[in-house]
Amino acid sequence: MNSLHFTTESSSDGMLERGFSLGEVPGVLWSPATGAERAPLVLMGHGGGAHKRHPAMTGRARLLTGSGFHVAVLDAPGHGDRPRSALDERDIAALREAQAAGEPEAPVVVPYNARLAELAVPEYRATLDALQELPEIGAGGPVGYVGVAMGTAIGVPLVAAEPRIMAAVFGGMWPDALIEKAQQITVPVEFAMQWDSERIPREGALALFDAFASKEKSLHANAGEHADFRLIEADSATRFLTRHLGSAANSAAN
Amino acid sequence: MNSLHFTTESSSDGMLERGFSLGEVPGVLWSPATGAERAPLVLMGHGGGAHKRHPAMTGRARLLTGSGFHVAVLDAPGHGDRPRSALDERDIAALREAQAAGEPEAPVVVPYNARLAELAVPEYRATLDALQELPEIGAGGPVGYVGVAMGTAIGVPLVAAEPRIMAAVFGGMWPDALIEKAQQITVPVEFAMQWDSERIPREGALALFDAFASKEKSLHANAGEHADFRLIEADSATRFLTRHLGSAANSAAN
Repeated sequence: MNSLHFTTESSSDGMLERGFSLGEVPGVLWSPATGAERAPLVLMGHGGGAHKRHPAMTGRARLLTGSGFHVAVLDAPGHGDRPRSALDERDIAALREAQAAGEPEAPVVVPYNARLAELAVPEYRATLDALQELPEIGAGGPVGYVGVAMGTAIGVPLVAAEPRIMAAVFGGMWPDALIEKAQQITVPVEFAMQWDSERIPREGALALFDAFASKEKSLHANAGEHADFRLIEADSATRFLTRHLGSAANSAAN
Repeated sequence: MNSLHFTTESSSDGMLERGFSLGEVPGVLWSPATGAERAPLVLMGHGGGAHKRHPAMTGRARLLTGSGFHVAVLDAPGHGDRPRSALDERDIAALREAQAAGEPEAPVVVPYNARLAELAVPEYRATLDALQELPEIGAGGPVGYVGVAMGTAIGVPLVAAEPRIMAAVFGGMWPDALIEKAQQITVPVEFAMQWDSERIPREGALALFDAFASKEKSLHANAGEHADFRLIEADSATRFLTRHLGSAANSAAN
C-alpha cells in the first residue's frame, strides 16, 4: 500500500490545510488548528469538472473544521491535478457535444461517473486507511461522507462498501447507476435535491432517496433549478454530521 | 372588535408566559423575558385533539422565544378550554368510529378540519390585530406561522388570506382541502413530511408541497411513520423563521 505524504501546509483563521499525495492521487486534509486530536473525519467528494480545492469544497471544509472535524477530499480521476485518460477525453467530449446540441446529459454522465467511481472508491478507502494512521485521527473514530452530484456518484458505492463510514450526505445525481448500492446503505443519510431541477427528473431523485435502506434518512428538497442549489444545505449537512459523528468540539452548535 | 385581555402571567427560565382571551377565544403569548421589544411574532396552530399548552406547543415556544420571538397560539374551536359544538361531537365520534374500524381517517378529518379552519382563520386574524396593538409587538413587524397536521389545515388558509404573515412552516396534513389555498401562498415555506406515513399518502404530501407558489420553499421528508415525527424539525423551523423574520435577538444562531 502507498503511504500518505504531505506536500504543502498552510493555516488561516483557525484552519490548517495540508496537501497530500497517496501514490499518484492528490488530496487535501483540512483540520481545526486547535482541538483536532482524535476529532472525527469527514471525507468529501467534489462535483464533475471541479477539483479538490473548488470553492464548494473549501466552503464546506471551513464549516466542518469550525465544528471540530478533520475533512479530506481527493481529486477524482481525470480531475484537478490528475491527468485525463483517453476514456476521460472521450466522455468529456461526448458530454460537451450533448450540451451543445441540447440533448440529455444523463446517457453520458451516468456511465462516465460510474466508471470514475470504480476507480475512486478504492482510492478513498486507501486514503481512509492512511489517514487513520495519523495520530490526530486514529483508527476506530467516526467517519462521515459528503458529496453531491459526481460526489454522490462516487459516494454511494463508497459508503455501501465502507463500513467505517457512519453517516453520509448525498444529492443531485441521476439514480440509474446507484439504486442497488443505495439499497445496501443503512447508515443515516441526508439527501438534497432541487425540486425544479432541469437536469435530474424529480421522480428520479425521489426514487434514489427512497432506495436507501437507512432507518434514519432525511430528504431536503428546495425549490429551484440545478444551479440554485442552496448554501443553507451546507449548514444543514454540518449539523447532521455533528449529530451523528458526535463532534465534541462544537456540541453547542448541534 | 373584541380586545385582548391577559388572564394569567408566569415566568420561567427566561420565558414570560401570558394567558389571554380575545372574546371567547383563549390563547397563550410567550415572550423572551428580555429583549422582547418589537421582537418578531410567530403564530402557532396546534394539532387535532391537542390544545394551546400541548408539549408540542410549549417546546416550540421555548425554542422560538430563545431565538428572540414572541409566540402566540389559540385553542382551536372545540379544543382545549373551548366547548365542543354538536358538529364537533359528531365529527369526533365519526373519527373514533373510523379509527376503531381501521377505516381511512381522511374522509372524516379533512372536512372536520376544513370546518374548524373556517372558524379559526378569522380568530387568528383578529388575534394578530390585537397583538400588534401591544407596545412590545407593534404593527408592521414581521410575522411567521408554524403548524403541522391540524395546524396546517388551519394555517394554509390563514397564510393565504393574511398578508402580514411572511414565512410559514407546515406539514403532516392531507392535501385534499388545501391545494387551492396553497397555490395562493408565495411567502417562504418549510414543509415537513413523514416519508413512510401510514396516514398521509406520500404522493399527497408531495402534491401539497408542490402546490405552494412560493419561490423559496423547502421540503423536509424524514424516514418513519406518522408518530416518528422528529424533534429536529422544530430546530429547523426555528432557524427558518430566524432567517426569514430576521430576529435580531439571536442572529448568531442563524
